[in-house]
Amino acid sequence: MSNEKPLNYFGLRQALLAIERGECSALDIIERCFDRIDAREAQVGAWQHRLGRDAYLQQYDQHQAFYRQSPLQGLPLGIKDIIDTAEMPTEMGSPIHRGRQPVDDASCVALLKAAGGILLGKTVTTEFAYFKPGKTANPRDLQRTPGGSSSGSAAAVADAMVPIALGSQTAASVIRPAAYCGAVGYVGSRGEFSLRGVQPLAQSLDSLGLMARRVEDIELVRALLLRQSQPLQLADARKPKRVLICPGERIGDTDPAMQTAIERVGTLLEAQGVATVLFDDEVLLKRLVEHHQVIMAYEVARNLVHESQHLDALSEPLRELIGLGLATERDLYLGSLRAAADTCTALWARYTEVDAILAPAAPGVAPLGRGKTGAPHMSRPWQAMGLPVVSLPGLVDEQALPLGIQLIGRPHSDSDLLSTARWLEGCIAERD
Amino acid sequence: MSNEKPLNYFGLRQALLAIERGECSALDIIERCFDRIDAREAQVGAWQHRLGRDAYLQQYDQHQAFYRQSPLQGLPLGIKDIIDTAEMPTEMGSPIHRGRQPVDDASCVALLKAAGGILLGKTVTTEFAYFKPGKTANPRDLQRTPGGSSSGSAAAVADAMVPIALGSQTAASVIRPAAYCGAVGYVGSRGEFSLRGVQPLAQSLDSLGLMARRVEDIELVRALLLRQSQPLQLADARKPKRVLICPGERIGDTDPAMQTAIERVGTLLEAQGVATVLFDDEVLLKRLVEHHQVIMAYEVARNLVHESQHLDALSEPLRELIGLGLATERDLYLGSLRAAADTCTALWARYTEVDAILAPAAPGVAPLGRGKTGAPHMSRPWQAMGLPVVSLPGLVDEQALPLGIQLIGRPHSDSDLLSTARWLEGCIAERD
Repeated sequence: MSNEKPLNYFGLRQALLAIERGECSALDIIERCFDRIDAREAQVGAWQHRLGRDAYLQQYDQHQAFYRQSPLQGLPLGIKDIIDTAEMPTEMGSPIHRGRQPVDDASCVALLKAAGGILLGKTVTTEFAYFKPGKTANPRDLQRTPGGSSSGSAAAVADAMVPIALGSQTAASVIRPAAYCGAVGYVGSRGEFSLRGVQPLAQSLDSLGLMARRVEDIELVRALLLRQSQPLQLADARKPKRVLICPGERIGDTDPAMQTAIERVGTLLEAQGVATVLFDDEVLLKRLVEHHQVIMAYEVARNLVHESQHLDALSEPLRELIGLGLATERDLYLGSLRAAADTCTALWARYTEVDAILAPAAPGVAPLGRGKTGAPHMSRPWQAMGLPVVSLPGLVDEQALPLGIQLIGRPHSDSDLLSTARWLEGCIAERD
Repeated sequence: MSNEKPLNYFGLRQALLAIERGECSALDIIERCFDRIDAREAQVGAWQHRLGRDAYLQQYDQHQAFYRQSPLQGLPLGIKDIIDTAEMPTEMGSPIHRGRQPVDDASCVALLKAAGGILLGKTVTTEFAYFKPGKTANPRDLQRTPGGSSSGSAAAVADAMVPIALGSQTAASVIRPAAYCGAVGYVGSRGEFSLRGVQPLAQSLDSLGLMARRVEDIELVRALLLRQSQPLQLADARKPKRVLICPGERIGDTDPAMQTAIERVGTLLEAQGVATVLFDDEVLLKRLVEHHQVIMAYEVARNLVHESQHLDALSEPLRELIGLGLATERDLYLGSLRAAADTCTALWARYTEVDAILAPAAPGVAPLGRGKTGAPHMSRPWQAMGLPVVSLPGLVDEQALPLGIQLIGRPHSDSDLLSTARWLEGCIAERD
């Protein structure tokens, strides 16, 4: 055995290049992914439903000619279990929908299948992508939460069971689990992707998200989701001129280790000749956290209609959220929507020279215990404004647990933001 | 026989009040609705799927205690066949989805059922809510188009088969058929309602819509969809201080009869002491028509994924739209999104004193022939900006065919806009 990692640790693009060069086959990679699942799933619990190895290989064999000439080569996909799939149930983490079998694939699923991805399985979500955890453990430390709500997607990717997984974010549901598990997380701008077949939680906040181990893999899958004509083309990494640094305290509770991590990335940026600006407003983002909470409660109560007729089958936090939403005055809700939109305009008008914002992806490392999924406040301001976000792993605390950071961009600047994130990913890797 | 119209002509609120006063029963009204369907459906063709009379009455009987204490009293609902229903197929006007049976009700359907509405049936939609007509005829003149895409909802309501029906609008799909058939149409602000279970066409443009015979009925159903605590409460009608009049020529081709209709409403407003301002920009709205077309093509091509793998089962116009969307440069699309948002901000900043905009709801009366659904340009500018819209019947041409007008409001000012529309509805009725 060499000391190289097995093929299931390959990034998606890395795997596709290795297949193209004849260094390995898609089947080699697929087999290693199943080896990893066999070895780890009993502890990690990333999957709600999935194909067994034989069923997967049979599907691959039956359509081998198609897969071998497709962009994704038959490699496996994890899909969060609030995204509809015609081949497997979509239960949204709730007993109300046990065995629920959608009739259609979500558009995002149909696109990735058309590009030669194979649905390996549905990944565990918290109840309706809100707070109540599923069975998933953090693969870096099984005693800790993986974060939520895209718990299974983050764990499966971080633990090298699949190279890529789809998630969704309404509050912090992609960025926080990516940060806690040590994956790359990406949340598209509001409206960036079709959400057909992605079960909604709050329409003004919901965004599609992706988990991968490398930024370039996010860029590839994003191009497929946008039906771009050259999905494998990779733009140059983009060194930013100016980054706005937002310390966690501007948003809410932040662990000292995370404060240090943000400072270290600031120093790293400056050492690379990037100008940094410190975000000094003490209240703006904290207000956005509150506006986000108002919008979410109001809209969840009007989305989960059937479910709110089965209150005894809902968790206490979700019942409370629906009750809060029903009691929320419409003018308060509309005021919060307006405030979020106005803040977004004012923020980018003030920082016209800034290429991206740097902020913590979570308050610290994944908390011990699996009864809760950690605090979501670090994502609420950006999500209220509908901004694109990329979280990067690579920094760790004294126990080597991941400390995720996030980069935030202008609305629909997702493509530039990802190129910038890929540049920073390289800097963080070289530093090690 | 008195010369009073039968009970199926009652507005929804009028019916509920009559039931409350003991002047008639819900069953009396339901029976008259079925009489009307029996008499007219063979020619009008409003329904894709529906309950028969016996099945409906059986459902009413089984849950009579519930219906009798519910807001909607067991009265019938028509639901456009792109809105998912768990009890009946949802086929989206396409052979690709023949017999497609969703597992869940859309949230809007679940809310109206919880309020005591009974799903009488699914109303005919054009293919995927785009251009290809279904079987529906215009109830005012069977040789004419009912308009699209919410063809069946408009025809069923205008022909007194049901008091209320749900529709949706991406371009002109509620306002145009409402105008052609002589119903009241309402399109909510973008994001106003949960679209869970409403099959999307273009996420930046899709809005839920309603058809009724009176504005007050729209207000009632809207309150139910927003889970408001006092849905039967009716705000005072709201006489506007100032209305911006937008002649059809500012948007595109307009028939002389429609030009005259808008002038007549302008005169009516002035006679009531409402200040009117003439919209004088020659290019702004025409540019928005183009931006709307760009956004729609780009997004449709990324929503109809499964369907675009079955091109031979799609109509020629839809194939062309998808082809156009796939060929649309992303920068052009993003520029159109930005232009629509910026225009919206600038428009309302310029006309701060204006309470509503008045414009034609369609270029003229419903065209002869049923192979096409009429031109959508009169709705594209407002839909691109995500504005709330109410179309009103009451004006007619020399042949007594309906000439619909529309009132447009600020984002999320739907409640005020509806009160204003109710006031204008009263003025138009008194004028006759």
